[in-house]
Amino acid sequence: MSGNTFGTLFTVTTFGESHGPAIGCVIDGCPPGMSLSEADIQPELDRRKPGTSRHVTQRQEPDTVEILSGVFEGKTTGTPIALLIRNQDQRSKDYGNLLETFRPGHADYTYWHKYGIRDPRGGGRSSARLTAPVVGAAAVAKKWLFEKFGTTFKGCMSQLGDIAIPFESWEHVRENPFFAANASIIPQLEDYMDALRKDGDSCGARIDVIAQNVPVGLGEPIYDKLDAEIAYALMGINAVKGVEIGAGFKSVAQKGTEHGDALTPTGFVGNNAGGVLGGISTGQDITASIAIKPTSSIRSPRPSIDKAGNSTEVETFGRHDPCVGIRATPIAEAMLALVLMDHALRHRAQCGDVRVDTPQIR
Amino acid sequence: MSGNTFGTLFTVTTFGESHGPAIGCVIDGCPPGMSLSEADIQPELDRRKPGTSRHVTQRQEPDTVEILSGVFEGKTTGTPIALLIRNQDQRSKDYGNLLETFRPGHADYTYWHKYGIRDPRGGGRSSARLTAPVVGAAAVAKKWLFEKFGTTFKGCMSQLGDIAIPFESWEHVRENPFFAANASIIPQLEDYMDALRKDGDSCGARIDVIAQNVPVGLGEPIYDKLDAEIAYALMGINAVKGVEIGAGFKSVAQKGTEHGDALTPTGFVGNNAGGVLGGISTGQDITASIAIKPTSSIRSPRPSIDKAGNSTEVETFGRHDPCVGIRATPIAEAMLALVLMDHALRHRAQCGDVRVDTPQIR
Amino acid sequence: MSGNTFGTLFTVTTFGESHGPAIGCVIDGCPPGMSLSEADIQPELDRRKPGTSRHVTQRQEPDTVEILSGVFEGKTTGTPIALLIRNQDQRSKDYGNLLETFRPGHADYTYWHKYGIRDPRGGGRSSARLTAPVVGAAAVAKKWLFEKFGTTFKGCMSQLGDIAIPFESWEHVRENPFFAANASIIPQLEDYMDALRKDGDSCGARIDVIAQNVPVGLGEPIYDKLDAEIAYALMGINAVKGVEIGAGFKSVAQKGTEHGDALTPTGFVGNNAGGVLGGISTGQDITASIAIKPTSSIRSPRPSIDKAGNSTEVETFGRHDPCVGIRATPIAEAMLALVLMDHALRHRAQCGDVRVDTPQIR
Amino acid sequence: MSGNTFGTLFTVTTFGESHGPAIGCVIDGCPPGMSLSEADIQPELDRRKPGTSRHVTQRQEPDTVEILSGVFEGKTTGTPIALLIRNQDQRSKDYGNLLETFRPGHADYTYWHKYGIRDPRGGGRSSARLTAPVVGAAAVAKKWLFEKFGTTFKGCMSQLGDIAIPFESWEHVRENPFFAANASIIPQLEDYMDALRKDGDSCGARIDVIAQNVPVGLGEPIYDKLDAEIAYALMGINAVKGVEIGAGFKSVAQKGTEHGDALTPTGFVGNNAGGVLGGISTGQDITASIAIKPTSSIRSPRPSIDKAGNSTEVETFGRHDPCVGIRATPIAEAMLALVLMDHALRHRAQCGDVRVDTPQIR
Repeated sequence: MSGNTFGTLFTVTTFGESHGPAIGCVIDGCPPGMSLSEADIQPELDRRKPGTSRHVTQRQEPDTVEILSGVFEGKTTGTPIALLIRNQDQRSKDYGNLLETFRPGHADYTYWHKYGIRDPRGGGRSSARLTAPVVGAAAVAKKWLFEKFGTTFKGCMSQLGDIAIPFESWEHVRENPFFAANASIIPQLEDYMDALRKDGDSCGARIDVIAQNVPVGLGEPIYDKLDAEIAYALMGINAVKGVEIGAGFKSVAQKGTEHGDALTPTGFVGNNAGGVLGGISTGQDITASIAIKPTSSIRSPRPSIDKAGNSTEVETFGRHDPCVGIRATPIAEAMLALVLMDHALRHRAQCGDVRVDTPQIR
Repeated sequence: MSGNTFGTLFTVTTFGESHGPAIGCVIDGCPPGMSLSEADIQPELDRRKPGTSRHVTQRQEPDTVEILSGVFEGKTTGTPIALLIRNQDQRSKDYGNLLETFRPGHADYTYWHKYGIRDPRGGGRSSARLTAPVVGAAAVAKKWLFEKFGTTFKGCMSQLGDIAIPFESWEHVRENPFFAANASIIPQLEDYMDALRKDGDSCGARIDVIAQNVPVGLGEPIYDKLDAEIAYALMGINAVKGVEIGAGFKSVAQKGTEHGDALTPTGFVGNNAGGVLGGISTGQDITASIAIKPTSSIRSPRPSIDKAGNSTEVETFGRHDPCVGIRATPIAEAMLALVLMDHALRHRAQCGDVRVDTPQIR
Repeated sequence: MSGNTFGTLFTVTTFGESHGPAIGCVIDGCPPGMSLSEADIQPELDRRKPGTSRHVTQRQEPDTVEILSGVFEGKTTGTPIALLIRNQDQRSKDYGNLLETFRPGHADYTYWHKYGIRDPRGGGRSSARLTAPVVGAAAVAKKWLFEKFGTTFKGCMSQLGDIAIPFESWEHVRENPFFAANASIIPQLEDYMDALRKDGDSCGARIDVIAQNVPVGLGEPIYDKLDAEIAYALMGINAVKGVEIGAGFKSVAQKGTEHGDALTPTGFVGNNAGGVLGGISTGQDITASIAIKPTSSIRSPRPSIDKAGNSTEVETFGRHDPCVGIRATPIAEAMLALVLMDHALRHRAQCGDVRVDTPQIR
Repeated sequence: MSGNTFGTLFTVTTFGESHGPAIGCVIDGCPPGMSLSEADIQPELDRRKPGTSRHVTQRQEPDTVEILSGVFEGKTTGTPIALLIRNQDQRSKDYGNLLETFRPGHADYTYWHKYGIRDPRGGGRSSARLTAPVVGAAAVAKKWLFEKFGTTFKGCMSQLGDIAIPFESWEHVRENPFFAANASIIPQLEDYMDALRKDGDSCGARIDVIAQNVPVGLGEPIYDKLDAEIAYALMGINAVKGVEIGAGFKSVAQKGTEHGDALTPTGFVGNNAGGVLGGISTGQDITASIAIKPTSSIRSPRPSIDKAGNSTEVETFGRHDPCVGIRATPIAEAMLALVLMDHALRHRAQCGDVRVDTPQIR
């Protein structure tokens, strides 16, 4: 209720601050009997960890995960799975005068007014570092969904600042630090980031995610629609300001005859729906895009106020991602996976196992 | 858990189908002692009811609301407030062969596969008619928020199909059936709709909503961020495919120096944040936009399949909105109000009454 | 969260006051495809309705239920099932000076201090009349559990005031107004009640309930243990002050060698466990007992205070049950059924359908 | 939903198994600004830790707690507080043939059938060791309740096996290993336990708990009644089979004129209510009692079956409490504190701060 638990049947409760002793989470509701070890989780954490290129924060964190519970002799037991990640590279004193002032565009101001107290070390709880436990938890969800339905997740950056990144091939994504599905554009992206860093500025990004081999029937009508929950999950990622499903904002100018994906015996024609109709999965690919705003922690001095309400200027020192979108792809995949996992369990609670007695198309 | 309750502390549980005997909801968690009668609720229902112009469905529903509980001698008692709206203009037999086939772009297909049964009369539970109880419930939330904080809600259509609607003035909104904040463009919109109807086609729309005089500090960090919950609420409205907060997708191409709204002793400079930072309200206006897809129930014949998976064609008869966006403005306001109401109560659970001991700006 | 919804996956949200226009509930999470009509629900309501003997309140309420939603052509659709019961025999003015004073042992005092306002007509929301919608909802749960697992529910009064009622046979329960499983003791119970009524006094009762043919594996460990949820459900019934599972308070003086029910290939020997071990059902009968306190609304004058805190005396007029325990048996069964229903759905969410691949005993 | 989170607004999510690497919990919803360190929590953990007398398990666990998050410069920040307790004295191989058979009266059988897998080391997740994190979390709740309302908690053992323990004085409770409020009876209790241990048997106990200085108005009507939640919390403690509030089962034989506590300007006369009327706190002491069954892990051989359903005999080796009731007093206090804490926050969500504008009595 205080906003630190994600999900309803497959829940992830996270804890920790950017520069506290540890971060982690408790996963509850994982079905029993699935083989699981740290080796299933660590690769996903490695995809989002900092310090892997000059375009992201230089904080050195191995993000080594320890499973504290819920696994017996290599199998999940149905009890809570706790993940622990010790912070290694804290610089607790690294926050200058941030306790006295507020970065424009940052959670500083709102945390202060909500709680009357805040942990300023690296943004405390509001840091994007807190996406690590979620990525770890999502590795468990992805594994179960893959074993049960063959579901897979992919994502890529489709725009960096004002540079659109044409999609070429998924295989490029792992070959560059931007998660771009395009090889030839990388030098241009690197130049752009280098100039930005030199200017002490930051930029936004657009990320696309997709889930494939999704069973039909996931999602609850009216409020917990699958697309509503995806929007909630993705908008909840640090710095996200917009979410689209399927055709998204392009739907506005479409006609009904153009937008509605025709059904044929061999499958849907098109996927303007993004894999969701009436809030329930169709079995097609689920596609979503997010807009990520530019990082608010920048070196350039900005006008602000202090806690007493007086005019001041704020510069951010320390280590920050100049574009949080660069590491956002595995996070967006993770959130999408958590939504599908939760709804897979919700579905079988009410309706039993996913129906296979009716002809399905994709 | 089955998706028919909205909210956590101020909850709205709805029931009913488009052509069943009644629709309604149970509101739980309303603070005690607020004056309330049907007269507070009916005007909001009247704003969204069908049949008020030739551009919307011609179904005749007075949508008269009855309060069944929770009010004693004109005041809320803190117990559940049940709202009942009897359906008046059902045409239960009006669904042709819809039980045997699926409209492209419609929930027909997914409901069938999820539940193995569906109520085809007017779309059953998936009908936009089910937004009526929510609009009624939101009238209660709006009243409390206004009395407590002075919070108000406004909305308008900013695009119809491919026609952008420039904002002129809020006062125009109530003067036309489109909720357009623009007087001169109305004839163009009417011509567009008339042509569409003649073609048996449908179109999308873009709606903007805003909340003003919002207290600082609403929203929970990490998962139940205020903007994540707004995205969830708005994406959950029938036919919505995209949600933006503040600068939305424009953030992608912004620099950090441009996007972060500077703080000054007299207020924020700009509102790219849309009134939310780190998932918590800043006290500025909360601004959001949604993309609504074209209606899937159209007269033009479309290729589809039947329940056995065989190829067929489907035409929709009966009464339908050619653009569900036309009546969506009060619905979007309602969802935004419900989110703020819920978070106002969540805030004071953990943090006590909204803080006034720190200097606030807007 | 405000206490008007029971359950987590099979939820019942009730509304209404004793003398308002109507009472009812919304059932959410019912699996689709089960045949259902008012005829399945009304008999359970008839078992608890008032006015059926001289030993209960003389208020005349047919408690006729109307299904407003969630059923299409006689089958549940998976969408919310709303039940409506119009109040027929309100006497809204029948509350004398109850607005100004507090009955000893009654919710008058606490509602007033909690909400600062209360509906005094017949106890308002705190009336035992509000168990009617729950009994209706439980009829739906009972039907599903019976069709799925053969689960049945029974209950009886085992003590009235200081008269213990020896168990003879379940068939007697329906033959007397006390739900006593004993025929010969009825005259003694009737005399006891007649004397009590003459004295303007009230008495308590003890009720036993049992569920049979319960699948093994229902209940969540640690907090949502099946017995913990049963305790919650039963203690939540108006006037209940104690709950026992299985051997209950007798366990205190038992030795481990005596209490632990031995397992044999043909079944458990004994049922001190009451059908629950480690919070999870064993497949044996689930047995529970409750203590019901004497009604607080009595004709005898009692010392009390008024709203200003001054000394006064209070007598209760109007119509009241001299022993709320007399009608409590179907209510206790209903609560037990709702708990099992909810946990049946929770079980299959995490673990899939109830396991049948391991040898089970009863 | 899978039963490892307690509470709704002040939530405690626990993890861990008896012989895994660690146990712990995440506390969410703690109000910000309260001073907190390990020194506030450790003393409560020390009250329940094992190995402190010859009458409890000889497992050596210091139960040293580490706060991982949620505290900045000695004050709570409103973010999750994670507590970690490393297990020190695991004997992972200490479970003999328990994987193949089931102890009578133990969760072995039900876990196996529910999950199809179970961790047999020391009972795994079903071990009473898992009450340690809850006791730690409750220390946080107790501190807040004391600072806010002056609320305090006490408890004692009132019966051990068939020996009733007359209440003499609270001060004795801390002077003996039984938590008995009586000094002279201790030798008798010690002899009883010594004989039991010699016999390889176990016994039950009755524990009483009390909360003092409780504000009026806590608890939600209908389902989340304060007494219903207390029953849920206490019945959820390992081995509990019965719960009473106030007069409990004695209410059955009381008359209304005797049971209902009269109100006078200087306070209630008596406390049959146990501090709760209509599910809401009256401001009087909250009193509850629980029945604890004898430990199921005993040395005496018992008839049982193996996983294949064949007859066998089971003896329990390893270290076990011969009466889990001996260490249950701080656990029962902890559960009561968590319920009150949760409802204190729920109360102010809906009703604002506890009312002081009406005359209150105790």
